[in-house]
Amino acid sequence: MQNFMLSDVLESAVLYARPYIKEGKLPDYIPALAEVHPGKLGVCVHTLDGSVHVAGDYNIPFSIQSISKLFALSQALNTAGAEKVLAKAGVEPSGNPFYSLVQLEYESGKPRNPLINAGAIAVTSMLPGETGEEKFSGLLGFIRELAGDDSIVMNAYVYQSEATTSHRNRAVGHFMKHFGIIDGDVDAAVDAYFRQCSVEMNCVQLSRIGLYLANHGVDPLTQRAVTVPEHVRYINAVLMLCGLYDASGEFAVKVGIPAKSGVGGGILGIVPGRMSIAVYGPALDEKGNSIGGIRIMEKLSSDLQLSLFN
Amino acid sequence: MQNFMLSDVLESAVLYARPYIKEGKLPDYIPALAEVHPGKLGVCVHTLDGSVHVAGDYNIPFSIQSISKLFALSQALNTAGAEKVLAKAGVEPSGNPFYSLVQLEYESGKPRNPLINAGAIAVTSMLPGETGEEKFSGLLGFIRELAGDDSIVMNAYVYQSEATTSHRNRAVGHFMKHFGIIDGDVDAAVDAYFRQCSVEMNCVQLSRIGLYLANHGVDPLTQRAVTVPEHVRYINAVLMLCGLYDASGEFAVKVGIPAKSGVGGGILGIVPGRMSIAVYGPALDEKGNSIGGIRIMEKLSSDLQLSLFN
Amino acid sequence: MQNFMLSDVLESAVLYARPYIKEGKLPDYIPALAEVHPGKLGVCVHTLDGSVHVAGDYNIPFSIQSISKLFALSQALNTAGAEKVLAKAGVEPSGNPFYSLVQLEYESGKPRNPLINAGAIAVTSMLPGETGEEKFSGLLGFIRELAGDDSIVMNAYVYQSEATTSHRNRAVGHFMKHFGIIDGDVDAAVDAYFRQCSVEMNCVQLSRIGLYLANHGVDPLTQRAVTVPEHVRYINAVLMLCGLYDASGEFAVKVGIPAKSGVGGGILGIVPGRMSIAVYGPALDEKGNSIGGIRIMEKLSSDLQLSLFN
Amino acid sequence: MQNFMLSDVLESAVLYARPYIKEGKLPDYIPALAEVHPGKLGVCVHTLDGSVHVAGDYNIPFSIQSISKLFALSQALNTAGAEKVLAKAGVEPSGNPFYSLVQLEYESGKPRNPLINAGAIAVTSMLPGETGEEKFSGLLGFIRELAGDDSIVMNAYVYQSEATTSHRNRAVGHFMKHFGIIDGDVDAAVDAYFRQCSVEMNCVQLSRIGLYLANHGVDPLTQRAVTVPEHVRYINAVLMLCGLYDASGEFAVKVGIPAKSGVGGGILGIVPGRMSIAVYGPALDEKGNSIGGIRIMEKLSSDLQLSLFN
Repeated sequence: MQNFMLSDVLESAVLYARPYIKEGKLPDYIPALAEVHPGKLGVCVHTLDGSVHVAGDYNIPFSIQSISKLFALSQALNTAGAEKVLAKAGVEPSGNPFYSLVQLEYESGKPRNPLINAGAIAVTSMLPGETGEEKFSGLLGFIRELAGDDSIVMNAYVYQSEATTSHRNRAVGHFMKHFGIIDGDVDAAVDAYFRQCSVEMNCVQLSRIGLYLANHGVDPLTQRAVTVPEHVRYINAVLMLCGLYDASGEFAVKVGIPAKSGVGGGILGIVPGRMSIAVYGPALDEKGNSIGGIRIMEKLSSDLQLSLFN
Repeated sequence: MQNFMLSDVLESAVLYARPYIKEGKLPDYIPALAEVHPGKLGVCVHTLDGSVHVAGDYNIPFSIQSISKLFALSQALNTAGAEKVLAKAGVEPSGNPFYSLVQLEYESGKPRNPLINAGAIAVTSMLPGETGEEKFSGLLGFIRELAGDDSIVMNAYVYQSEATTSHRNRAVGHFMKHFGIIDGDVDAAVDAYFRQCSVEMNCVQLSRIGLYLANHGVDPLTQRAVTVPEHVRYINAVLMLCGLYDASGEFAVKVGIPAKSGVGGGILGIVPGRMSIAVYGPALDEKGNSIGGIRIMEKLSSDLQLSLFN
Repeated sequence: MQNFMLSDVLESAVLYARPYIKEGKLPDYIPALAEVHPGKLGVCVHTLDGSVHVAGDYNIPFSIQSISKLFALSQALNTAGAEKVLAKAGVEPSGNPFYSLVQLEYESGKPRNPLINAGAIAVTSMLPGETGEEKFSGLLGFIRELAGDDSIVMNAYVYQSEATTSHRNRAVGHFMKHFGIIDGDVDAAVDAYFRQCSVEMNCVQLSRIGLYLANHGVDPLTQRAVTVPEHVRYINAVLMLCGLYDASGEFAVKVGIPAKSGVGGGILGIVPGRMSIAVYGPALDEKGNSIGGIRIMEKLSSDLQLSLFN
Repeated sequence: MQNFMLSDVLESAVLYARPYIKEGKLPDYIPALAEVHPGKLGVCVHTLDGSVHVAGDYNIPFSIQSISKLFALSQALNTAGAEKVLAKAGVEPSGNPFYSLVQLEYESGKPRNPLINAGAIAVTSMLPGETGEEKFSGLLGFIRELAGDDSIVMNAYVYQSEATTSHRNRAVGHFMKHFGIIDGDVDAAVDAYFRQCSVEMNCVQLSRIGLYLANHGVDPLTQRAVTVPEHVRYINAVLMLCGLYDASGEFAVKVGIPAKSGVGGGILGIVPGRMSIAVYGPALDEKGNSIGGIRIMEKLSSDLQLSLFN
């Protein structure tokens, strides 16, 4: 596929997806997220050969929110190893809301996977550092290195907005502490989690980061080995099974690639051996996924034959 | 990869897996399944070019049990269409035991996916025919045509064994009837379900059947279009997310291909664009999957680079 | 308290309660129950000395529904003994809807108490007789003897109405059969249960029956020992904790006596050492209790100082 | 009944109960509670006429733990009124473990009743004062006034023991804060809760306190109106339905009086119109109730005909 054609496909996908936006809504439980422009929609694709393709509002920075969970997971796999990560969070779909405490109680505090909130907090609690700031600082370094871009920062307003409202996540943290899943300080883990959710990127930065997951763990542009193939399979499998909240199955059927969404409106998709895709559209569907972003992904999967299940 | 090499790989996988068998157990809740020889272990691979490779106890017939759920799903997609099937069973992982009624109650009787028992019974209830015998007769025809083998039959002893014990599945059926998920007769749906679970095949027959799912819905040996590509993506995605009971995530991480297991000891795995794999080993792990079969799959995935997540 | 005064109190309670009726609704899931006149309201009190006091629509026959559960419990305690009954159903509040299967699954099929549907079906399954008709026949005899009235019968139309719709209760029955809680035939137990729910009485008959529970197990009018004091404490305790579905606590706070309600609009209340009260009002509140009946009970408790918690 | 006889009955009850102690266990999750002598067993009865009767280890101070929940409830009813208390915690049995978060999630954070941990923390959060110390100080004053004994204090070691371990209760607090059930500071509410649980009394002090609940809210010895009759019925009803954790039903059947137990080994029982009973025995049964204390209560109920359900 030639590059100019790929750009056309992206333009066409944005056009296709735009009408669906108006059925979506901004999340209302994190004030800072409710203040963005709901009509934005953009996409960026990085292919393994280094070419970059964009369409729509690809250059607007947005809060990556839950997409940060996969970077924390990747860093934890690198620093602590798969065995220790598995001891803190499983790799099975939860079948429960991402914020739920129910399954946690029935399963002795061990989160089903690293992409529900509990699992993400457990994973973040494993990151090096004592305080929330220290843990986050290492993770931000990891992210910046992946993006090759030191300008990536946390949005302090979003962070403040989350930190003052999310008592549910604090409950999750203390609950896991009770069961011995969190070793250190609960507040540090939860604070680091709020920070990582508040990191901002645009589609170009986000899709740049995903490349190593489409290339066996090696950044195809720098040839740096970010992680081992075993961890890549781990991450991509978990993304495929649990990456889109309670719509992961529908996404697997209709799009068929490992991906992670965030309530900030972003979705990062990985096509092993081919490309990394980032979309942005802040209006969400009732499952919490970017309503326009999902449609872009569906169109791309169809036009470019991306599904792994073909 | 040359054919003789693939056979070597299979032999080596059986050798690798055999020691794990002794940690497994035969299921005790269906008397007929508790009477097989726990030490058996076999595998058969059909590649898209029509070559067949075997190792171990590949020619022992076994009860396909839950593997039948994917054939019923495929037939229902063909006869009723995806939209109607989706109205009776979703495509999301359940996060609950495959036999559970809990989620069914919380979600108004609609099963999460067609591979948990509730979903399978709902799908089977949609198959043409009024009685259990009629519904099953059509499904058996579908299976025989897929296998190109009219000798495939139900094991009457296994059927009898299930039908007289499985009050849990009857409860599931009546519960869905209460919620209007099952339209017709509950007993007919449950009876057909017991029958389909009792179908017997060996690894050669089973892997033969899976070929169309590795080839966009077209049987590569006969060139018959069994189903449309859209349904193939549907089925493979559901297999990937929900095919191995509560170990689907672990299987995705370690093996990385769509697959379906049964408590009869079989596992059918699909590698899109490459091959269909059937393994048999009746000793089960604590999740209800063939303990030796899982190991064979892991070895094959590693040796042949089968994971879709690479 | 003199008798004419008690009648005045009853009249005044009906007057007090009548305005609340219009906020209530007839149940819609059992067709036969949706066809009664929602404006009816009546009460009858039997005191231990044999005096009878009535007000309002005390002589309209109604379907006793769940009130039958306490008679089945009493008969099972007599015929099988407390130990065996306890093996089939506990004595703890459930905290779940009366029709729910969730707790049943988590607690290995054993119902929390004999007043939720599962517990009632388990208790009825213990009654003498093989078929539903036989089990019910014995229970009806027990009821008639308690009432001293052989004219009491089942309403065949109500029975038919329940039997053809209640797949949820069939699910409950098969689920308990799976766990070994029901020994005999599921259909017989469920059928007997539908029959007992369809028994009709008016307030005079119903309050007459309750007298032995207010008098240590001895019918004060005939001096017949219906049951032992130990069983009376058992029954009254269970009524107090679980008798009004998910409003048992509120009823305990506001009325404070053992009681059992039914979706047919009846409530039977026991005041140990003093009296038995039956009210009828088919319009139900959102918890499934007679909305006017509850108000009558509250007024009587207040006027006559009935609460055991004073 | 003459006084010397009542003492005999108490002695006999302690004798009867003592052999059961050895089947019990000290709780291990609060270190301070695991260090008491498991063989202790005592009882004290205050009758409405002011006579006091004791047997066994009646004068050993113990940690009242959950028994404090009823004093906090009583004070909250006095200071905030029943309506506001009802807005923070219901009056229905939970059917779930006292520490559970599951039902809280399904029911939007509102605890079922004030005697499960969540409900108790919600009630304590309503007590006057900003900090945990302030809230507790008022409650301790209320308790001391009830006992007529200013020597009652919190055991600082027990408090420290709870405060450093109970992350589950912190989780409960933050979870309710998320749902808006807790208005003020979570840490203050939880801290006050830990403090109230750490109050120490002996059986004489504890049974002295219960007298007003057996006498329509009026302390029979001082004639002080502690609360209104409506609140007494509220408290006694909730005690009857929810006072003994998940053994409330069994206690209602076998003993039949309103009561509250604590994992410190105490049980306070109220017999309206007659007496207040406090027992102590730190060895617990598997439900978390004093194993010897329960037996004493059963014996007293039988010997003195205490059950309200007779």
